[in-house]
Amino acid sequence: MLLHENETEYILLTHGKLDTQLAQETVILPWTGGTSCFIGTTRNVFENKKVKTLFYEAYEEMALKELRAICDVIKTKFSVGKICLMHRLGEVGVGEASVVVCVSSMHRLDAIKAVEFGIDELKAKVPIWKKEIYEDDGGAEWKENKEVFWK
Amino acid sequence: MLLHENETEYILLTHGKLDTQLAQETVILPWTGGTSCFIGTTRNVFENKKVKTLFYEAYEEMALKELRAICDVIKTKFSVGKICLMHRLGEVGVGEASVVVCVSSMHRLDAIKAVEFGIDELKAKVPIWKKEIYEDDGGAEWKENKEVFWK
Repeated sequence: MLLHENETEYILLTHGKLDTQLAQETVILPWTGGTSCFIGTTRNVFENKKVKTLFYEAYEEMALKELRAICDVIKTKFSVGKICLMHRLGEVGVGEASVVVCVSSMHRLDAIKAVEFGIDELKAKVPIWKKEIYEDDGGAEWKENKEVFWK
Repeated sequence: MLLHENETEYILLTHGKLDTQLAQETVILPWTGGTSCFIGTTRNVFENKKVKTLFYEAYEEMALKELRAICDVIKTKFSVGKICLMHRLGEVGVGEASVVVCVSSMHRLDAIKAVEFGIDELKAKVPIWKKEIYEDDGGAEWKENKEVFWK
């Protein structure tokens, strides 16, 4: 488990369940009027194959560094209050959250745009791999995120 | 309190606290991989005046009808799983949620765009009024939402 927190950021990599309620509570400030949140969950179907479960693995220290860099970029591009980035590692069952991006801002558009940007950046840049376990053939392999920039 | 729920919609108007956790849980389906959520909270400052608290009042039956209409439009414009729209009525203190828009979809962009569209539509079309109570002068008046289309 890696946790980095200060007044404007809360970043968590954990093998435990992601607490989306905490993600929201930590970013809502007295002067912010809008909070936007994205939650990525394991789907039961991927590329037409029935998914039983997913596993995530990260180069943790590097992932934390990249997540902090994403926060820095968000703060230069948008007027935000506080940013929360969480990623779960290990097994993440169908319907469970693997990733949470949550941002508060005074006016809603900054929060909404910052979250859209943040999840795109996270998928493209953070060294986290996933393995789908399928129901039919039991086949599985570790994959980079399809959106990673180095592909 | 007015509640409308079916397989693809959960709409709530209530004087109680909004349960953002429930909003997310109700929209996440086994086949959806992305959930986007917007939470509007009372800010402590509005137009340079210190806000003590806010009150919301609605033409409830008409508000519910408009909220259902927004769900219908979202479903024609975006490929979504389930939509949750909640609005609190009565007093909403600083930092507390007055409105929640939450949408799930198979791929994340539909959910993200649907929530952005949904909160814009809600602010523009749903007959809900608010009254700010300021700390300094105790002054207060009922106002339509600044974004309402009929202004």
